[in-house]
Amino acid sequence: MLVLVANLGSTSFKYRLFDMADERCLARGAVDRIGDAQSECSVEIGDWKETRTMPVPDHGVAVAACLEQLTDPEHGALKDASEVAAIGFKAVHGGRLSGVFVVDDEVLDAMAEMNAAAPAHNPPYIAAMKLLRDRFPNLPLVAAFETDFHRTIPAARREYAIPRDWADQFHIRRYGFHGASHRFIAGRVAQLLGRSDARVISCHLGGSSSLTAIQNGNSVMTTMGMTPQTGVPQNNRVGDFDPFALPLIIQRTGMTLDEVLTRLASQGGLLGLSDNSGDMRDLETAAAAGDQKSQLALDVFVEEVRRHMGGMIVAMGGVDAIVFTGGIGEKGKEVRAAICANLEQLGVVVDRAANEAIDGEGNFHDSDSRTQLWVIPTNEEVIVARQTVERLQTS
Amino acid sequence: MLVLVANLGSTSFKYRLFDMADERCLARGAVDRIGDAQSECSVEIGDWKETRTMPVPDHGVAVAACLEQLTDPEHGALKDASEVAAIGFKAVHGGRLSGVFVVDDEVLDAMAEMNAAAPAHNPPYIAAMKLLRDRFPNLPLVAAFETDFHRTIPAARREYAIPRDWADQFHIRRYGFHGASHRFIAGRVAQLLGRSDARVISCHLGGSSSLTAIQNGNSVMTTMGMTPQTGVPQNNRVGDFDPFALPLIIQRTGMTLDEVLTRLASQGGLLGLSDNSGDMRDLETAAAAGDQKSQLALDVFVEEVRRHMGGMIVAMGGVDAIVFTGGIGEKGKEVRAAICANLEQLGVVVDRAANEAIDGEGNFHDSDSRTQLWVIPTNEEVIVARQTVERLQTS
Repeated sequence: MLVLVANLGSTSFKYRLFDMADERCLARGAVDRIGDAQSECSVEIGDWKETRTMPVPDHGVAVAACLEQLTDPEHGALKDASEVAAIGFKAVHGGRLSGVFVVDDEVLDAMAEMNAAAPAHNPPYIAAMKLLRDRFPNLPLVAAFETDFHRTIPAARREYAIPRDWADQFHIRRYGFHGASHRFIAGRVAQLLGRSDARVISCHLGGSSSLTAIQNGNSVMTTMGMTPQTGVPQNNRVGDFDPFALPLIIQRTGMTLDEVLTRLASQGGLLGLSDNSGDMRDLETAAAAGDQKSQLALDVFVEEVRRHMGGMIVAMGGVDAIVFTGGIGEKGKEVRAAICANLEQLGVVVDRAANEAIDGEGNFHDSDSRTQLWVIPTNEEVIVARQTVERLQTS
Repeated sequence: MLVLVANLGSTSFKYRLFDMADERCLARGAVDRIGDAQSECSVEIGDWKETRTMPVPDHGVAVAACLEQLTDPEHGALKDASEVAAIGFKAVHGGRLSGVFVVDDEVLDAMAEMNAAAPAHNPPYIAAMKLLRDRFPNLPLVAAFETDFHRTIPAARREYAIPRDWADQFHIRRYGFHGASHRFIAGRVAQLLGRSDARVISCHLGGSSSLTAIQNGNSVMTTMGMTPQTGVPQNNRVGDFDPFALPLIIQRTGMTLDEVLTRLASQGGLLGLSDNSGDMRDLETAAAAGDQKSQLALDVFVEEVRRHMGGMIVAMGGVDAIVFTGGIGEKGKEVRAAICANLEQLGVVVDRAANEAIDGEGNFHDSDSRTQLWVIPTNEEVIVARQTVERLQTS
């Protein structure tokens, strides 16, 4: 079965094509600047790379353009577009619907109910899904929600201390996101450790970051909450913040609540702290050159990751493995070392040389360390592809 | 030197009178229902207790009524009201002013700037201080801010990941509160452990709750933030919450932001979770009788304390002593046991019998425990009295 896994932005469409017989990625591609006069459609199949420039007015045309490249007579991965069995979406927030669903009106309604909580993510997904449903009526669309992996979090770590009626009626609780990535890590670390009952902290650190505590393969705690804005600071999003500071900001700036929240979600995070950049590499360069605000941004990021990691260690009564993934988790040697520093009394001991040397998958715990330390490149797309196949086979 | 330590509510005035020669509490009292037709003024001096009922229109009259009871010819603690050298206030939020100050226009202005962040606390303090300054022009008023003890928290654990200009211009950062209580614990635990370099977590758990990490006697991390609403859930206040959920609540309820925040700060916390009560004893009774929502409220409280405790253990690289204080911390044996449960691998081992038996000050760690566990009744008022004396002697 061939599955196209889609990752949507408001003006972009990225995808990978999987052959689920052996989970091989046959092709990957992207359409950027959808809606502009000239959009770029790029594809990569084996050694063949191609970029076409053409007008792509919407996501429906984008998918059609991709399918055309994928069926290129000479280099294509498909003989016919009908070979694609389904499109699987890494969908963000379904609120009351958390799981994997064939996209229908109820799924779209549930997503629309969460528009106010995920304004950057849900509206473009809903619009694109509606368009694709009309354009490709025989192609099943499957939404694998990012919240799905976190459905096993116990109520005591899921509920906010808000009035009961708001929790019940508006479905306000800690959902957690990055579910596909943390699920991949849970599976891979069980293979690497040779046991499925380990207590694991999965640190997905990248453009957006979250930590998840995993016990017996299940999520038992996570850092993101009702929305993907909370938890550790993101590249340009605030992370944990005190809502009762908002009236003061509104009073002083004269901005509306929506304007204040938009600024916190676009000019906060590492960018806000540093007044420089939301990119970890830029910050490391600037900090090394003596820029104190960039150093502060790095330090706050490390402290917040450590703070949340500590909460998870206590929640599980200890930790057998800490895993780093995502762009920063996989490449950020110095950030990893800082996050794991000074934890010898808790049984976490870094092998500094191993940490420096890791390229791809590998571990960097000292032989004295009770906790194993790993870098594992994540693969969210293959998780979505698997979930898509499972949903189609059981529905 | 005799110092009156005042604790103000919008319609109440509680106080203790200290003789700072030996830090003895000479008298304590309260005026309740200020502004009603009949207010109650009660006083306790040694074995003598008296309650007078009389009209007390404002906090100025309340202080005058207290001084009259304190100078009672037969039972009074004072010969003359002029023996009181100063009134010390456990003031809440001074924003840019954090420390101990003789109340003047600048102090009142700084507090007023934070009215939007501490609407329940700052306005009544400001009104009462202005009134008392007019009524008793020769009596120094000293504000010891609850944020003072937390001034030693390093920037990386103090700053939010918000746009730099908002942090700088509006003084938005993690301040922390309950400073007098945590400062008292820091001093007392150093005496009990016979060392001042210990890594301590002070858990002030009561009607309002916060945790503070203490290293070398200084606060290095705390759970409350820009306002006293954040951190662990309070009796009726929400604790940590996702600000990006607010637009959804506003959209669904039609309430204003201020109305939503007021409800989160008055019908949230343990009360909101349980839909029953914000009082820990009520919840324990109801949970024992099978009420699941009351049990959930207890569980969320314990999990949130543990989560924050874990963050502090990692921040300090371990913990030498965990101290419980405040109404719940001192009396809540079951809550203490639940908070410390399943931490043996981290070196925290409870002596269950000792935990059950504690009345007043005492410890309850097992002989195997690397971390000492203590209950220490707090004394915020004596800290404010000491700070008041220091301020007067150095200003």
